Amino acid sequence: MSEEKSIFTQIMDGEIPSEMLYEDDRCVVIKDINPQAPTHVLVIPRKKIPRLVEAVADDESLLGHLLLVAGKMAGQLGVDEAFRLVINNGADAGQTVFHLHMHILANKTFAEGSLSKEFG
Amino acid sequence: MSEEKSIFTQIMDGEIPSEMLYEDDRCVVIKDINPQAPTHVLVIPRKKIPRLVEAVADDESLLGHLLLVAGKMAGQLGVDEAFRLVINNGADAGQTVFHLHMHILANKTFAEGSLSKEFG
Repeated sequence: MSEEKSIFTQIMDGEIPSEMLYEDDRCVVIKDINPQAPTHVLVIPRKKIPRLVEAVADDESLLGHLLLVAGKMAGQLGVDEAFRLVINNGADAGQTVFHLHMHILANKTFAEGSLSKEFG
Repeated sequence: MSEEKSIFTQIMDGEIPSEMLYEDDRCVVIKDINPQAPTHVLVIPRKKIPRLVEAVADDESLLGHLLLVAGKMAGQLGVDEAFRLVINNGADAGQTVFHLHMHILANKTFAEGSLSKEFG
């Protein structure tokens, strides 16, 4: 499952051009190519964990790092007062690339009770 | 900001009755009292971090642990093939309790492009 390069790995390897908003030895942050909010970026680990449920105990600090980077990116993007972080796990939950990634969405009106709306 | 007990801390301290679906020394999992999906539980650190952006480097392993517990809970709840994990940061993003928590939502139809719908 992890042998094929994901589109994110191809981006990290420079095979697909993409503007890196942030990168370190463990993750990168890029803009979503199909933004669903005025601010919509992705925090992606360099390690290809297909889905959150495939993460193992050894990934604990990596996963924590991703959330810390998400918080810092929100500050850098000026949206730290109001943003939503989303991880879709599985195709039926809207996951389209099977390489773990966190969506940071902001600068949209977040309607009350909008957690339910996200399910359509 | 962290001096007042959050409703979650009151639950963890047994001051407000609640069924724990899971608990360990670092976090608890409870059902959302106002579910917005047939499966809607919350993963909550015992440490009161008000918002994700207030998490610091020392919280890295705790944050990673919360995501690992979320994945395990999804398995335990039988929704590991399709669930969405959401963290709202800030009142304008729908955060209502200022004690960090992760929503696990499942057993709803996740419409295509539903990330945008969640913004109402």
